[in-house]
Amino acid sequence: MQVKIKDVAKHAGVSVTTVSRVLNGEKYVKDDLKSRVNRAIEELGYAPSQIARSLVRKKTNLIGVIVPDLTSSFYSTILSSIEEMASANDYNLLVCNISEDIDKELKYLNVFQEMRVEGIIIMHEKINEPIRNFIHKIKIPVIFSSVKPMDQKFVSVIIDDYQASYEATKYLIELGHETIGFIGGDMRDITSGQNRYSGYRNAMTDAGTKLVFEHIRFGDYKVKSGYDQMKELLSVEHPPTAVFAVSDDMAVGAMNCIRDHNLRVPEDISVMGFDGSQLTELVRPTLTSMEQPIQQMGKVTMDVLLKQIAGETISMSDVVLEHRLVARESCRNRNEATRM
Amino acid sequence: MQVKIKDVAKHAGVSVTTVSRVLNGEKYVKDDLKSRVNRAIEELGYAPSQIARSLVRKKTNLIGVIVPDLTSSFYSTILSSIEEMASANDYNLLVCNISEDIDKELKYLNVFQEMRVEGIIIMHEKINEPIRNFIHKIKIPVIFSSVKPMDQKFVSVIIDDYQASYEATKYLIELGHETIGFIGGDMRDITSGQNRYSGYRNAMTDAGTKLVFEHIRFGDYKVKSGYDQMKELLSVEHPPTAVFAVSDDMAVGAMNCIRDHNLRVPEDISVMGFDGSQLTELVRPTLTSMEQPIQQMGKVTMDVLLKQIAGETISMSDVVLEHRLVARESCRNRNEATRM
Repeated sequence: MQVKIKDVAKHAGVSVTTVSRVLNGEKYVKDDLKSRVNRAIEELGYAPSQIARSLVRKKTNLIGVIVPDLTSSFYSTILSSIEEMASANDYNLLVCNISEDIDKELKYLNVFQEMRVEGIIIMHEKINEPIRNFIHKIKIPVIFSSVKPMDQKFVSVIIDDYQASYEATKYLIELGHETIGFIGGDMRDITSGQNRYSGYRNAMTDAGTKLVFEHIRFGDYKVKSGYDQMKELLSVEHPPTAVFAVSDDMAVGAMNCIRDHNLRVPEDISVMGFDGSQLTELVRPTLTSMEQPIQQMGKVTMDVLLKQIAGETISMSDVVLEHRLVARESCRNRNEATRM
Repeated sequence: MQVKIKDVAKHAGVSVTTVSRVLNGEKYVKDDLKSRVNRAIEELGYAPSQIARSLVRKKTNLIGVIVPDLTSSFYSTILSSIEEMASANDYNLLVCNISEDIDKELKYLNVFQEMRVEGIIIMHEKINEPIRNFIHKIKIPVIFSSVKPMDQKFVSVIIDDYQASYEATKYLIELGHETIGFIGGDMRDITSGQNRYSGYRNAMTDAGTKLVFEHIRFGDYKVKSGYDQMKELLSVEHPPTAVFAVSDDMAVGAMNCIRDHNLRVPEDISVMGFDGSQLTELVRPTLTSMEQPIQQMGKVTMDVLLKQIAGETISMSDVVLEHRLVARESCRNRNEATRM
């Protein structure tokens, strides 16, 4: 039998109201009563219902998180750091994996509302009309992590994707590559699609490097699409000497495709990734990548959201974190090669 | 302003009790009243509080999940399939990442109890006394996924780790390897530690293959420990010609260590993994591995748990799923080499 609040009251010889006041940490409860109640709670093994207390306090300590793909190393690392920060602040995560199923997302947002979550974190930018309407209507703080949707009403915790992509491309140009292939993302995505493509395109034209139509491809950020797009890049008459993929997963797919075609990375083709996920260190050659501060991104997201929940007035402008190019083994310096 | 149940009642011209009866799907509510209430709900955009309904129905539709490491591809894939199955059954997941922090786990289990989760899934087997006492005391169904703790009271959804490990070792022996190194797990873990080690040991002795003390090492399932333990294996006077690591992560670490010592996989040393995670296909050479049916494991776990929640009488014996050796490129056949 579940121990009830009235059992505690009876055992302690006090009223239910007194037990309730002790549980809610109210002032002006005599120490004597307080210790009798606490002793009774311990002796009976009473666990107060969070649900019942939520109704009184209007606090659920729940955060709803929408993840596009739990099996991606990038998202699971952000999630892991969000979880750490939430736990340290006594918040619990309702985790929803949408696998790009928009209907599932809308259903989840409804659940979040019904569960009275105190905040919502969204990690993708494919926001359609019903979802847009929903998140604008609800009175729950919403924050975007690692992405920026078309809508300006919410805070995004991101890096400067345009600048990061510009610098990654410039790095390959400075290594002496004159033909640089590009494997981009979904062009409906502003941050990871459009901005990264613009960064590549402008770095190329600013350096006077020719943009080749056949060298520009788009995937879905996953390993397989990196492989498939690389296959297309290898099938053109003059394949590029370097390839920049806008996710590490696609870059690894590209590396494997190059290898499976009996070519070498980086001797024949250099490969540059984006994200700085765990994969960069796992593959051989290790992957040069434009890194996002993944751990910090999760921490800052929770930090800003907790402030919004606490009702603090925060700036509604985006939080832009630092990116960093980490050179590893997958990119060859062609200048040195020429000098040799 | 939040729309309240009394606003709905007023708008529909019925009593609060009637609205409540409609919301709870009770019988014997006249169709006419039902449609008036539903119309009012729609017109006012009323979202009934899941919290309040939980109190009435004693149903929270919440499942608590304890994950040892969200950033591991193995666990995030199981979690993703648990999530899919939960969502299809209108359950939501409270996800807790413990990172081997036992205090954090106990705190989370308390939260699960207070939140009145309907079931708990645990994915590690390091169950200490306080946790054991806790899960024995609570009246909530608990199930273990991919692991089997020392305690027999709960159902585990697992593979036959002993047999799988035995077959993996036998495969290497049949490829002509006479010295087979072993990188095991935590020997306090029954399934992934002890059983996998026994499988290796018995396959070796059954085949009359010598067990070499210096060839047996233990790690923590993660990439880095596979790398570090492999380094030790390479430093002995006669390193083994094949290495069996009991997780794919450790196997990939071992492969990288071999490569960094200017040796080749599989020409110089063959490597066998365990789990069948995404990594097996990402690395080059691709990794031969003893595969667990990861997706199915998540689905079956939720399936059994949902039956327990529904109060169905289920067999308390473990659910043992099929393992499968998937041969890829990382293991060399020495018999063929000799014949050449």
